[in-house]
Amino acid sequence: MLDSVVLSCSLLGLFLHVVEFTDGGITSSFVRSVDYSLDMPLNSDVFRPPPGYNAPQQVHITQGDHEGRGLIVSWVTPDSPGSNTVYYWVEGSKKKKYVEGIVLTYKYFRYTSGYIHHCTLKNLEFDTTYYYQLGLGDGNFSRTFTFTTPPSPGPDVPYTFGIIGDLGQTFDSNRTLAHYQKNPAKGQTLLFVGDLSYADNYPFHDNVRWDTWGRFTEGSAAYQPWIWTAGNHELDFAPHLGEHKPFIPYKSRYHVPFEASGSTSPLWYSIKRASAYIIVMSSYSAFGKYTPQYEWLEKEWAKVNRTQTPWLLVLMHCPLYNSYADTYMEGETMRVMYEPWFVEHKVDVVFAGHVHAYERSERASNIAYNITNGLCDPIKDESAPIYVTIGDGGNLEGLVTEMTEPQPTYSAYREASFGHGIFDIKNRTHAFFSWHRNEDGYAIVADSKWLLNRFWKPSEVPPLASA
Amino acid sequence: MLDSVVLSCSLLGLFLHVVEFTDGGITSSFVRSVDYSLDMPLNSDVFRPPPGYNAPQQVHITQGDHEGRGLIVSWVTPDSPGSNTVYYWVEGSKKKKYVEGIVLTYKYFRYTSGYIHHCTLKNLEFDTTYYYQLGLGDGNFSRTFTFTTPPSPGPDVPYTFGIIGDLGQTFDSNRTLAHYQKNPAKGQTLLFVGDLSYADNYPFHDNVRWDTWGRFTEGSAAYQPWIWTAGNHELDFAPHLGEHKPFIPYKSRYHVPFEASGSTSPLWYSIKRASAYIIVMSSYSAFGKYTPQYEWLEKEWAKVNRTQTPWLLVLMHCPLYNSYADTYMEGETMRVMYEPWFVEHKVDVVFAGHVHAYERSERASNIAYNITNGLCDPIKDESAPIYVTIGDGGNLEGLVTEMTEPQPTYSAYREASFGHGIFDIKNRTHAFFSWHRNEDGYAIVADSKWLLNRFWKPSEVPPLASA
Repeated sequence: MLDSVVLSCSLLGLFLHVVEFTDGGITSSFVRSVDYSLDMPLNSDVFRPPPGYNAPQQVHITQGDHEGRGLIVSWVTPDSPGSNTVYYWVEGSKKKKYVEGIVLTYKYFRYTSGYIHHCTLKNLEFDTTYYYQLGLGDGNFSRTFTFTTPPSPGPDVPYTFGIIGDLGQTFDSNRTLAHYQKNPAKGQTLLFVGDLSYADNYPFHDNVRWDTWGRFTEGSAAYQPWIWTAGNHELDFAPHLGEHKPFIPYKSRYHVPFEASGSTSPLWYSIKRASAYIIVMSSYSAFGKYTPQYEWLEKEWAKVNRTQTPWLLVLMHCPLYNSYADTYMEGETMRVMYEPWFVEHKVDVVFAGHVHAYERSERASNIAYNITNGLCDPIKDESAPIYVTIGDGGNLEGLVTEMTEPQPTYSAYREASFGHGIFDIKNRTHAFFSWHRNEDGYAIVADSKWLLNRFWKPSEVPPLASA
Repeated sequence: MLDSVVLSCSLLGLFLHVVEFTDGGITSSFVRSVDYSLDMPLNSDVFRPPPGYNAPQQVHITQGDHEGRGLIVSWVTPDSPGSNTVYYWVEGSKKKKYVEGIVLTYKYFRYTSGYIHHCTLKNLEFDTTYYYQLGLGDGNFSRTFTFTTPPSPGPDVPYTFGIIGDLGQTFDSNRTLAHYQKNPAKGQTLLFVGDLSYADNYPFHDNVRWDTWGRFTEGSAAYQPWIWTAGNHELDFAPHLGEHKPFIPYKSRYHVPFEASGSTSPLWYSIKRASAYIIVMSSYSAFGKYTPQYEWLEKEWAKVNRTQTPWLLVLMHCPLYNSYADTYMEGETMRVMYEPWFVEHKVDVVFAGHVHAYERSERASNIAYNITNGLCDPIKDESAPIYVTIGDGGNLEGLVTEMTEPQPTYSAYREASFGHGIFDIKNRTHAFFSWHRNEDGYAIVADSKWLLNRFWKPSEVPPLASA
């Protein structure tokens, strides 16, 4: 039950209104292992290229249109351009279709990439399992994978998203990914909230670590779409190396269907998938009023039809609500800009990474402030999203453990462990979010929350008898 | 005298500290003419091209290095590329030097620009008047102008900057520029705080209005450097016209010496000029942590030597403090990011435009807020800059007249009139800032403030006897 306590303090002409949160948040006492996260060595199994001259490697797929009937297939051939063609067919069918993609390379400091292929499959059937084959005609080294398209967008379509952030390529990263893949909740599509390879932590941003990361993640990303968000480790901005233009490796390797949502940049875009409408934002691009990202997002809200896609999710790298010490308030510049829209349009959940730990917020907002009114405390707000920080994929920078104390009222649960999340949509009104730490067995839920859809069930409690 | 009143209100665990401003701010009762600002027609005298085939037009100069011994000369030849050479000589000398520049063109929707020339003069003598000549060898239509280099940077070098923002090309714009040129305070260099031509307000962003603006401003900008800041009207972002890349016309026409300050973009950079260190920022580029602009500015502070250049000025388009209604709080996203640095490094003045009116702040800061402490009121702060909003150049969008009420304590003076500013540095400790409205005679000061340098005179009042 909501205990709404409104207090006023008239003081120098200022009025202070505070709506209290009922329960205190939880800071988990779980004792995780404190090993430093070490990157897996280059000769690790998970980094091994597929056998055969110029065999397609680093295969990954993502949604390729706005509706879910398109798929972008990306891969690298290391030795020569090879074939750009993707052959694909419905399970059981002998009739193969094919489509031609593009190939590109990029240079970064002294590194030259392999041949990076991107190919968009269009007009796929909904809710259908396909096979696809790469490298045909390049000798005997073709490779075949499979994926399943989502159901047609609809309000009561069950669908399960995994969520991983700040993954990197350590032994812990490997544990996170294995846990995700073995989770009996069976994520059908992965929402990746930024910071992929951490290649920029190597001398000269060694882009070989982009390649190893591509091979490491293939075991999942070749079989189910990973929805990409750019993090600060995707910037690869290094003027001392002559690399002035941000996001070159990332934008070369990870193509997304930004044009399908009217975006002018791969760093922000949206997709519909089953019963969800997913908006991806860029913490490290311009986002002030009048900028391309702002103008795009302003038009985006009207395109969200909650009767077709009830679940409105936002992905970004830097969290707007976070109570860990190291990165505290880094998201303020974006929060003051966009939080009012998130509340107005009743976003269900904002998933972010960046902080190498886990945190789940209450439904809280902090949008009443007008400089002179003193109203700058986060308050309980039924229209506000839940903010999930899940930058605990396991990268080499290790866990963030220092927290601000006392735990702020907006923080519902926080724990410095590596893990992944599952967002399991049941129907238009109910979804179950769970967080799974790597130290536990695959099926164990360390934190969870039933979510009521903000459009169809805008209040979790009966209204108060009197205001 | 500062009357410091500290009040505490313990309320639900929150503490509220308020330091009162002593005096109320002034909202001017000046009754200006309320004519709507109309653009000058295309056949106006001020837009007339110079006579002769392919004669250099739209001539403008800006500083061309970090120290003040360089100058970028830019101009347009309408009919053919013509000569890229600038001839220049010291007043009285018969010996001409010359330097070769570059020429470029750009396309925007259906418009193709003339031939835009940029040429950098280097290693000029300080404090010296030069002549320069463009178009020699292109027939008889060469043109000659003059400029004076600044004195060598030094702490007590007097120097006078004009400040204009949001100029446009209306009859009011013309009045503003004429007033500036006739001001007996004689601005030696103009700080332009963004929004130049307002070409984007015309159908299809008619870039002809960039050309007319170049001819309109030549009468000043060919003779003294204009220091450029990008505003929202420089974005020219128009995906409906196929124009996806921001700032194309602006970056093609207005070159600045950004590389000299280690910047990787013309949208943010710094220069030293006489006794001032001037930092130019971009409100419409990425500025979050880790972004190129942030990384650049983070390194910039250590380069400011207040013993050489005591006066630290920041230019940006969107103000951080502004109490007009229309654009209220648009600068919040940048304020929460950068205000702590401005206070820490004792910036003397932040000049901004955007709001089509005039406002001067108290020395105020609002940097104590940490989400949970309730400390979100601007307080009097001797280390804080004065914020001057001076977007009242006179453009076709007209004046902003609606103000937030009551006038916030951080606001010292505000008035909705067109005008310009003068920042007159006397020595390392004293500078005189004045604002001149267009309705008055040239010598009349409508608002003014003696400024004590924040490094050399960090406090304007004696310290309190007890804390």
